[in-house]
Amino acid sequence: MSVALIKPDPKLDLVLDRVVDVPRELVWKAWTTPEHLRHWFVPKPWSITDCAVDLRRGGEFRFVMRSPEGQEFPNIGCFLDIVPNERLIWTDALLPGYRPSEKPFFTAILTLEPSGSGTRYVATALHRDEAGRKQHEEMGFEEGWGTVLNQLVDYIKTKM
Amino acid sequence: MSVALIKPDPKLDLVLDRVVDVPRELVWKAWTTPEHLRHWFVPKPWSITDCAVDLRRGGEFRFVMRSPEGQEFPNIGCFLDIVPNERLIWTDALLPGYRPSEKPFFTAILTLEPSGSGTRYVATALHRDEAGRKQHEEMGFEEGWGTVLNQLVDYIKTKM
Repeated sequence: MSVALIKPDPKLDLVLDRVVDVPRELVWKAWTTPEHLRHWFVPKPWSITDCAVDLRRGGEFRFVMRSPEGQEFPNIGCFLDIVPNERLIWTDALLPGYRPSEKPFFTAILTLEPSGSGTRYVATALHRDEAGRKQHEEMGFEEGWGTVLNQLVDYIKTKM
Repeated sequence: MSVALIKPDPKLDLVLDRVVDVPRELVWKAWTTPEHLRHWFVPKPWSITDCAVDLRRGGEFRFVMRSPEGQEFPNIGCFLDIVPNERLIWTDALLPGYRPSEKPFFTAILTLEPSGSGTRYVATALHRDEAGRKQHEEMGFEEGWGTVLNQLVDYIKTKM
């Protein structure tokens, strides 16, 4: 898709925009490989117990988040746009193969740009309405997405 | 996307599969050009009063259907996959730019294959659940989509 089509609206959407000192090729790899992703994708002590990445448009993106108390929260959606090392878009409004889902919540857009020797990392969550944005804020978007970005950077520096 | 990802389920989905004696390039053109589309896209005496086609992934597909009594029914969604003369996928589960919509109902898949001097025309509607399929059946999918296909063929033969 054309990047111009992405229009975050402050009333509806949430954006995390930060420069990190790891190369974007590794960020991309950590984001799109289940074996890497499960190590950083949720704020510890939460964990990922299952994860599938079918990196095609319409392909599956599935993961199960497990709370410290052992409760599991499955998520399933599909990829909409894939430009390696640059842009990844997925949504839970559509299941794999583009079937509308029963519980649409948000579309996620990850964009990566080189910034010096590091990467400008922009993660955007598009919601259908203000209630969606507020719910995501209350679930801890700001802190949660920031924490996992720290975890991602640490993981890349120490394990990749 | 890979065609293999499209998996219609008889319980959830509806399919119209017919060979028509018009070339697929004209079917494609009639499907993706608002000036053509408004002439055949709803069963007469219904009409299309407004139509926009932004033929990019994530781009807008909008149309307003008007009943014979003058009631208007706006539809808005976005394109997911565009392979000229072969495949067009759009959904109302996402607004243009991939924002989740408030009233997701279905994803439509149009596939066109050459068949002799004509075209095999397959239109598939994917729903999130059986209730969605039943609702679409009761709205007259079978007769409605068949009627507009007849209108499309007539339009191509007489006006294009």
